[in-house]
Amino acid sequence: MLDSCLNPEMASEITLQPVRRHGVDAGIFFSDIVIPLKLAGVGVDIVPGVGPVLDEPVRTAADVARLPQLTDASLDPIREAVALTVAELGSTPLVGFAGAPFTVAAYMVEGKPSRDHLGPRRMMHNDPDTWNALAEWAAEASGAFLRAQLEAGASAGQLFDSWAGSLSLADYEKFAAPSSTLAFSRVKDLGVPLVHFGTGTGELLGAMRDCGADVIGVDYRLELAEANRRLSGANVLQGNIDPALLTAPWEVLEAHVREVLASGAEAPGHVVNLGHGVPPDTEPEVLTRIVELIHSISPSAG
Amino acid sequence: MLDSCLNPEMASEITLQPVRRHGVDAGIFFSDIVIPLKLAGVGVDIVPGVGPVLDEPVRTAADVARLPQLTDASLDPIREAVALTVAELGSTPLVGFAGAPFTVAAYMVEGKPSRDHLGPRRMMHNDPDTWNALAEWAAEASGAFLRAQLEAGASAGQLFDSWAGSLSLADYEKFAAPSSTLAFSRVKDLGVPLVHFGTGTGELLGAMRDCGADVIGVDYRLELAEANRRLSGANVLQGNIDPALLTAPWEVLEAHVREVLASGAEAPGHVVNLGHGVPPDTEPEVLTRIVELIHSISPSAG
Repeated sequence: MLDSCLNPEMASEITLQPVRRHGVDAGIFFSDIVIPLKLAGVGVDIVPGVGPVLDEPVRTAADVARLPQLTDASLDPIREAVALTVAELGSTPLVGFAGAPFTVAAYMVEGKPSRDHLGPRRMMHNDPDTWNALAEWAAEASGAFLRAQLEAGASAGQLFDSWAGSLSLADYEKFAAPSSTLAFSRVKDLGVPLVHFGTGTGELLGAMRDCGADVIGVDYRLELAEANRRLSGANVLQGNIDPALLTAPWEVLEAHVREVLASGAEAPGHVVNLGHGVPPDTEPEVLTRIVELIHSISPSAG
Repeated sequence: MLDSCLNPEMASEITLQPVRRHGVDAGIFFSDIVIPLKLAGVGVDIVPGVGPVLDEPVRTAADVARLPQLTDASLDPIREAVALTVAELGSTPLVGFAGAPFTVAAYMVEGKPSRDHLGPRRMMHNDPDTWNALAEWAAEASGAFLRAQLEAGASAGQLFDSWAGSLSLADYEKFAAPSSTLAFSRVKDLGVPLVHFGTGTGELLGAMRDCGADVIGVDYRLELAEANRRLSGANVLQGNIDPALLTAPWEVLEAHVREVLASGAEAPGHVVNLGHGVPPDTEPEVLTRIVELIHSISPSAG
């Protein structure tokens, strides 16, 4: 999995497949939030059935001080993959991708996927200096990773904060927002739309916007009309078809997609996508049919 | 683990230990949300490092139709454990405990702990009749389990909906609230305070109250003052010390506990506890110190 992210031809091909197959209006760069770690020389691999696992979790000030720096040259395979992809996509835009620093740093503390993310949440309060240093390292890595994609031709950039929903608003503002702000600041001068997405982040939308994002991702839990109210109608929204509905009878799924579009129509703009990842057992034909349905309702929204 | 829940002397002893050790103002009955399944004859066990695992997940209408019914006599070990506990506790009240039907039914579909709860969330939309039948089975089991505890002397009853935070408000109202309402209705005539607790349920508090609960549990993610506003100041709140703070330096933890108490003071009442379970590596002395602190601030709130 990580090897295919680092092989430019393969990463490009995997990025292009869903665009060719489903006729979506943009590609999303195929990668993983731990790729910048791998490129920096941190020992990490994907363990099947588990997810990303680090050789050594990062838990002390000394562990953080010992972290290798991501070099500009190490990002060449990413630039190459993006350039290949953009050349193939023609006028279809490519969205660049990076993990948000909170989630990346949280992985580094846990060393593997976790349910409660107690390790990073403890570190914030036990040893805020170490947490802040680690989050800053992750922010620089994610910022450089996203910048490499944008400079190579991606038209927008997205930070994925999968675990941000485990934080209270106060902890998010104090211990996660500064590093997302730093990561966004590393690409801000490029003037492309920036997307901030998390799961279970209904309480955090305004704080996520204030990190410097133009577009706010909303997972399936919160109606887009309500998300738009919380953001005072000021932001384009991204989301939020429920992945659990992808196996439902078509009429149930169609009704859900139409509801999502109607709810999103209240926002100043709506990038339609899933409110979370595609489950591996999804029938690809269902995704094609959803794209066709969306295009039939709103030709520019799919 | 499940065996100790079914051994009256042992369940009683484990319930009493934290009351003796930390001087808390109430005991919580030691049990597990899958105990009613075990008592009904469903094959289930706790696998170390994993959690409750069912011999056979429940996924079809035929699976649901085949479920054994929980008999009144099978609840005798629970009644005995509660009676033993109440006799020891004297004037200290005991809070009864059961899983909320959504979480119990979701476990039955998944067959084991899961992250996204895709199985039950799919079933709701693919096959709502089967989901509703399963949720009703779980509601009757949880209702009977809670009733047995209350009739044997428990002074309040609590439904734990650990996974409710994975639902949108619309899905919660349609597919989870009816079964929590049914479970509460099975004990409503007893006139004791009923508590409804979930994690990540900041969007669902009003709907959880409307199931028939008097006291609403709030996990560590949401400030109690904000929870109180969402409930229009009409309910006693339970919560919400962040378990991640239990390893923090004492002055950090003390400041957090004082904030929680100040925030909860806006509600008509506040049952102070943790906003989620106690991590296994917690130093017991920390819990004792927190109870002493709370009693020093508000003698009746601990």
